[in-house]
Amino acid sequence: MPTLKESVYDILDYDPECGLVEKIVTIGLIILIITNVIAVILQTEPGIGTEYATFFNVFEVFSVGIFTIEYLLRLWSITVDLRYREPVRGRLRFMVTPFALIDVLAVLPFYVPFFLPVDLRTLRLFRLLRVLRLFKTGRYSQAFDIFIRVFRNKQAELLVTVAVALVLLIISSSLMYSVEHDVQPDKFPSIIGTMWWAMATLTTIGYGDVTPITPLGKLLSGCIAVLGIALFGLPAGIFASGFMEEIQRKTQHPVICPHCGKLIDEQNRERET
Amino acid sequence: MPTLKESVYDILDYDPECGLVEKIVTIGLIILIITNVIAVILQTEPGIGTEYATFFNVFEVFSVGIFTIEYLLRLWSITVDLRYREPVRGRLRFMVTPFALIDVLAVLPFYVPFFLPVDLRTLRLFRLLRVLRLFKTGRYSQAFDIFIRVFRNKQAELLVTVAVALVLLIISSSLMYSVEHDVQPDKFPSIIGTMWWAMATLTTIGYGDVTPITPLGKLLSGCIAVLGIALFGLPAGIFASGFMEEIQRKTQHPVICPHCGKLIDEQNRERET
Amino acid sequence: MPTLKESVYDILDYDPECGLVEKIVTIGLIILIITNVIAVILQTEPGIGTEYATFFNVFEVFSVGIFTIEYLLRLWSITVDLRYREPVRGRLRFMVTPFALIDVLAVLPFYVPFFLPVDLRTLRLFRLLRVLRLFKTGRYSQAFDIFIRVFRNKQAELLVTVAVALVLLIISSSLMYSVEHDVQPDKFPSIIGTMWWAMATLTTIGYGDVTPITPLGKLLSGCIAVLGIALFGLPAGIFASGFMEEIQRKTQHPVICPHCGKLIDEQNRERET
Amino acid sequence: MPTLKESVYDILDYDPECGLVEKIVTIGLIILIITNVIAVILQTEPGIGTEYATFFNVFEVFSVGIFTIEYLLRLWSITVDLRYREPVRGRLRFMVTPFALIDVLAVLPFYVPFFLPVDLRTLRLFRLLRVLRLFKTGRYSQAFDIFIRVFRNKQAELLVTVAVALVLLIISSSLMYSVEHDVQPDKFPSIIGTMWWAMATLTTIGYGDVTPITPLGKLLSGCIAVLGIALFGLPAGIFASGFMEEIQRKTQHPVICPHCGKLIDEQNRERET
Repeated sequence: MPTLKESVYDILDYDPECGLVEKIVTIGLIILIITNVIAVILQTEPGIGTEYATFFNVFEVFSVGIFTIEYLLRLWSITVDLRYREPVRGRLRFMVTPFALIDVLAVLPFYVPFFLPVDLRTLRLFRLLRVLRLFKTGRYSQAFDIFIRVFRNKQAELLVTVAVALVLLIISSSLMYSVEHDVQPDKFPSIIGTMWWAMATLTTIGYGDVTPITPLGKLLSGCIAVLGIALFGLPAGIFASGFMEEIQRKTQHPVICPHCGKLIDEQNRERET
Repeated sequence: MPTLKESVYDILDYDPECGLVEKIVTIGLIILIITNVIAVILQTEPGIGTEYATFFNVFEVFSVGIFTIEYLLRLWSITVDLRYREPVRGRLRFMVTPFALIDVLAVLPFYVPFFLPVDLRTLRLFRLLRVLRLFKTGRYSQAFDIFIRVFRNKQAELLVTVAVALVLLIISSSLMYSVEHDVQPDKFPSIIGTMWWAMATLTTIGYGDVTPITPLGKLLSGCIAVLGIALFGLPAGIFASGFMEEIQRKTQHPVICPHCGKLIDEQNRERET
Repeated sequence: MPTLKESVYDILDYDPECGLVEKIVTIGLIILIITNVIAVILQTEPGIGTEYATFFNVFEVFSVGIFTIEYLLRLWSITVDLRYREPVRGRLRFMVTPFALIDVLAVLPFYVPFFLPVDLRTLRLFRLLRVLRLFKTGRYSQAFDIFIRVFRNKQAELLVTVAVALVLLIISSSLMYSVEHDVQPDKFPSIIGTMWWAMATLTTIGYGDVTPITPLGKLLSGCIAVLGIALFGLPAGIFASGFMEEIQRKTQHPVICPHCGKLIDEQNRERET
Repeated sequence: MPTLKESVYDILDYDPECGLVEKIVTIGLIILIITNVIAVILQTEPGIGTEYATFFNVFEVFSVGIFTIEYLLRLWSITVDLRYREPVRGRLRFMVTPFALIDVLAVLPFYVPFFLPVDLRTLRLFRLLRVLRLFKTGRYSQAFDIFIRVFRNKQAELLVTVAVALVLLIISSSLMYSVEHDVQPDKFPSIIGTMWWAMATLTTIGYGDVTPITPLGKLLSGCIAVLGIALFGLPAGIFASGFMEEIQRKTQHPVICPHCGKLIDEQNRERET
């Protein structure tokens, strides 16, 4: 028979083949997260925010209360998990996992003003991050795991893409600044100010609030835009190869050795990663 | 000799190696669908809509009449199809297939006003959806089937992409609202109002009617735009891997060894799906 | 020893391992095509076009003359090519190939006004199409051939993408028209008029000259934009799989039959296409 | 024991398993490059540039000094590298490598005004290019190498894409000019002037400062936009196949059969390049 701690751990740790209590708790938390998102959004609506202020405050206290209890129970019961077995070090290691940090960030802004005279109303937005938890429990958590794996495998390539993009941003802003600054000093005030234009051009957003007017500026803009298209192709290409790798990993089949005719099992492939 | 019901079923159910009657009926229906699309579009043209009002009305009655007869004949003869064999349950199951629902939606707005005092003129647009039927009968129906299969196989990944996009939309709107609301209360009126900007930025459309003006807002905008590019890469990567899978599936047929004539059984490949 | 006709054919039909005369003729024609493109472009420049009118006219007569002679020589010598062996039918079949048609279109607008009283000045632009010929003779003609093959192999998928885009365009224009027409009758005047907005949104161009202002219109716009992103991913995915196929075709290696141990050569793969 | 020249070469030539001195020099140079980038950017900020002019000038002299010494030491010690062994020819060959050219460009604009009476202040921007060196020494230099390899392998395809884009740009500008010039002579002044619009449309940037107003111009714009989407898909597809090829190359190592211990020779794979 499981101890109380084990039961709490089982209830909070969602897995697809779980019991009824677990399902109700999971679904209840999901509903609470979603209603929190809706509440944070609606609170900013001109009419609604002020009129139902009391309701939103009560709901906030209630939500933060539930989230706090959930977090403390998770922290208490996590030692059941073998990875976080040790009472102190295990719990500390659990506390710095991304999802545990999000859970703290979701409730902390509510408590801080009691101790420190700071206004943390905008940090209320951190509660929105809890919505990420939905990906862990939903029907599509397996597909989401593929995303996480692809992102992790292609981390270096994606970071290099971001770095290349940053270098392109700096160089194109500098060039455009030196070409357009004299003609439009208000729109291209400095290299940093020109980055707004460079960002809109490299990402092909093109808001149109800042555009070059000199022929040289336009020519430069065209060249930068072409580099922007290439930049667009990089993540698409990286993701494509990442997803293909995932599919191949799943489908790799045994190879038959032509020398002895025996089956070579998959351990050779282990070296691939 | 086929019964009348079987003949009707054969005529309405297009397949590439069909007889002359079937071809004429199929082409006739395609022409009717396309002329309907053209009629719905032209009816909104300032000059044309009012001048030829009578013609458009007559054509609508005629089209709806044909589409109604077609739908009823389909419903009557569908029991020939083994999947919908049972007279009542089979027909009900057929009625909820996507294409049968589109066929009802295409004619229903015409009949409802006779029974209920509602104006359903805008619902006339549902007739446009019948144009989707063209993909089933055209020369490229095979290529379209690949699309459907890729979409179905990659459904979970595509839904997760949409979910990630939605989360990004909510979080970036909330952040941008808290940064820009005080400076431009008319353009960033609430979180929901800011979503218009966030949508235009994440999709890299960039209409330019709403743009941040504070330095922090511009910086945030740049970061969101970069996430938007990554988001763009995801469906491209997913489709690329989906199309590759389709190609691999098609090309992995059992190979016959020309030396010994035996089949090289590809049982390893069976595991792929 | 080659006959005159064979020599002419060899000189005009570029291949990488050709003699000096062939190289000079090819390079001469390439230079003439490029200077023609530059001339057509410069002729529209405010200052240049009128001032150097005589020069441009002389250059046009000269270019058209050369292009005409080249076309006639090609037509005369093409019977050397085994595919177009027959004097009459072969030449007619050659005349309807894409490149031969472009060559006629490049010179025809110059001659027609002598026979018919029509102004074909804008058709002068057809000469620009000759620039496509550069892809056939350049260093990268092999890479260009891969493009042509990928486009041809993926023709059906690309056409279905265009068809899906067209259906999306019609349906989203119709929906947006019925939502925004009453509020902005000048910007969404009719379904056809709304297509301008739908095009700018689905392709994520977002000029920003026409944007919805009603909440429902904005919501709809967001949904259409998401479909636009998916639409963007389709050609990228199709091209990715097309280029991968080309690579695989090039690298397919023999399979060893596990029953008899003998090598199975590639003819089994022939069935793949 | 290494000679002085060998020590200098080792210190300047970064490799991951290097000694402490090497690490300090490398990190010092990286910090100097980054602070240079920040200085060039900040110098254009309205308040900062003039107020701290003296500081920026001193810092420029200092940086150029260090970079000059670094370059001269590199040039002196490069003969240690077997590829550049010969004292004169080897050093000249080293001087024309991309990174050596960037290093000269980074310092040259500082020295030229001492000899020639030209103002090269804008060329100061060349120092920014040194930031590219970061990719060679960082943690992700391996991922960056993959990018370089993919770009090199797919060079021909990428150049053809750029060429196709250029041809599309010329043809669509010419067509749009002849359609819209008479109605909006200020926005479509000439074919070259129309290229600004064509560039913004083909890359889907869509600044919105120039848009067609005639129905024919809008129709043409739509067709060009669709070609633009296809053009976008090309680099994405090319990169995807390029990254896939890299993965395949990496994972196709000779396999050792664990049953008989023999090498399963992958000679078929050799043919891949």
